[in-house]
Amino acid sequence: MSDFTPTSRTKVRQKPQRGVYDRAVINSILDEAFVCQIGFVLDGQPYVIPTNYVRVGQRLFLHGSTASRMFRALAAGAPLCLSVTLIDGLVLAPSVTGHSINYRSVVVLGKAAVIEGVQKKLAAMRAFVEHVIPGRWESMQPPGEPELQGTMVLAVPLDEVSAKIRTGPPVDHEKEYVHELWTGVLPLKLMPQEPVADPRGKAGIPVPAYVRNYSR
Amino acid sequence: MSDFTPTSRTKVRQKPQRGVYDRAVINSILDEAFVCQIGFVLDGQPYVIPTNYVRVGQRLFLHGSTASRMFRALAAGAPLCLSVTLIDGLVLAPSVTGHSINYRSVVVLGKAAVIEGVQKKLAAMRAFVEHVIPGRWESMQPPGEPELQGTMVLAVPLDEVSAKIRTGPPVDHEKEYVHELWTGVLPLKLMPQEPVADPRGKAGIPVPAYVRNYSR
Repeated sequence: MSDFTPTSRTKVRQKPQRGVYDRAVINSILDEAFVCQIGFVLDGQPYVIPTNYVRVGQRLFLHGSTASRMFRALAAGAPLCLSVTLIDGLVLAPSVTGHSINYRSVVVLGKAAVIEGVQKKLAAMRAFVEHVIPGRWESMQPPGEPELQGTMVLAVPLDEVSAKIRTGPPVDHEKEYVHELWTGVLPLKLMPQEPVADPRGKAGIPVPAYVRNYSR
Repeated sequence: MSDFTPTSRTKVRQKPQRGVYDRAVINSILDEAFVCQIGFVLDGQPYVIPTNYVRVGQRLFLHGSTASRMFRALAAGAPLCLSVTLIDGLVLAPSVTGHSINYRSVVVLGKAAVIEGVQKKLAAMRAFVEHVIPGRWESMQPPGEPELQGTMVLAVPLDEVSAKIRTGPPVDHEKEYVHELWTGVLPLKLMPQEPVADPRGKAGIPVPAYVRNYSR
């Protein structure tokens, strides 16, 4: 697949050197994160709501309740903006205004389509689980038809897309390097902590490898 | 200060048991995170852009370039939605549809006001730095007036605000606990990694304690 073509709506204008339209880079961001922020408009008021997603080929899938105000609006064709942000670190520069945050963010503009049909919804559910916790689906019973019916699955095409990325050390002008001050980057990463067993769970079941060795 | 009163626009309707309007809880979320997502509307199209923020009392401050399309729209009084999300863990339930994500999110609706004046902007800059990297400001030279002039500072009042929080183990019905399957929570946390010194930085300056012992 070719890279994205920036439009007047997705072209990165502020610090354009951070704009990225490369499909492989954008896919890698979308595949590392699993929570996006969905922007939509109701009565002229923007709303931004976090939700889980997964990329499947050239589409992002979302799932939610058929009763959700957001999902009903999106299913009815409301224009949306889907934003994904990974925070990679803090940039400590010589100057105050040179301080920054290393991040990788993606913005997707478009409209969602409703995914219908038990088999397609089941495939989407599998993709959600396997995206968030690879290995989990195989150990489970798939959901039945009643459970699938209460869940709405939406697909957002990856058509009008751009990324913005800041990476690396401070970029202050050389003349700022005058004071005795540590400068550099403090990387940050979303890391798994010690698993907490379900108090209602069955006793004696070991923590599975896909939990013990979790990483993104 | 009293707690927030949910409005028709901020009342949590989906899983209302997750809705939180307690000011102390909401402040603690806003003080732990430092990147928000700003939703705004241009020509009927919603946009969602990540940016740095800090809470100062009953307001959130934002900063950006005076040339930024978003900052110009917000400064002109465009309605905004500011969303903050902390990801706390993965919930592995007995059923596929019982799987969830532990999170703490805040939504703020309103409009921004422009902060004018060198002293007020300087105080805001100090708040940004001290929010993201406590201890850093004291070791630095404050920015001069020209640097402050290129930066726009906006304040968003904390008036129409709600939080949504999921915490704890799976909440599946007891009848789902039939299979030999590990269930529980895998906590996730944004953690500092090994600091990376600036290749252009001065040699021999030790990593300061506020970097070495960083935590949120």
